[in-house]
Amino acid sequence: MKFDEKGLIPVITQDVNTGEVLMFAWMNQESFKRTLETGVMTYWSRSRQQFWVKGETSGNIQEVREVYIDCDADCLLFKVEPKGHGAACHDGYRSCFYRRLNISDGTFYISGQKLFDPEKIYKK
Amino acid sequence: MKFDEKGLIPVITQDVNTGEVLMFAWMNQESFKRTLETGVMTYWSRSRQQFWVKGETSGNIQEVREVYIDCDADCLLFKVEPKGHGAACHDGYRSCFYRRLNISDGTFYISGQKLFDPEKIYKK
Repeated sequence: MKFDEKGLIPVITQDVNTGEVLMFAWMNQESFKRTLETGVMTYWSRSRQQFWVKGETSGNIQEVREVYIDCDADCLLFKVEPKGHGAACHDGYRSCFYRRLNISDGTFYISGQKLFDPEKIYKK
Repeated sequence: MKFDEKGLIPVITQDVNTGEVLMFAWMNQESFKRTLETGVMTYWSRSRQQFWVKGETSGNIQEVREVYIDCDADCLLFKVEPKGHGAACHDGYRSCFYRRLNISDGTFYISGQKLFDPEKIYKK
């Protein structure tokens, strides 16, 4: 498994049941190890520079079901079972890829399914 | 759309019909533009530092069907129609993610479907 110059490997997370791509994030070697040990997706947050157990705050954890590596061994694909609301996105959508491009005019529009209102979950 | 410090954005390519994740690669702004203009996936090859029309050599081009962007606007998801043999991987497999992790012993084994023998396609 190849990590980049920052010690990270890109991770694609897909819903094991529907095949929907839920999110894209990064892992370092330790977060990969923790993910396999706990069975719960544990990314490395580049912005916060810390381990990030997905759904730790919201309850929307992702349980690991299947793990794949690509031909160059520099990208991982996890198939997961989303728990809680089942929303991978902090904006409240099932998938982080909730905006679709209108190819004819170059604008993005919301195409995803909103499962919760983030303002009601992440209180300050 | 946010490009990284190298001017690149990560791209996930998914089969529009089956939902299978086919590959992971990168685009710069110009390859994104060419992809939309031609309707054919055109990546930026980091190793060769050049535009890379996927399938130009093998005939296994990928026609763009749907385009999505994630919540942080720093990753793209393309749903494509694979042409030719339908193999995204230069190793001859339908998907580049043709190796699956045996979580119990930490080894990867081949789980993907081989569609062609690369030695017969890429002659030297």
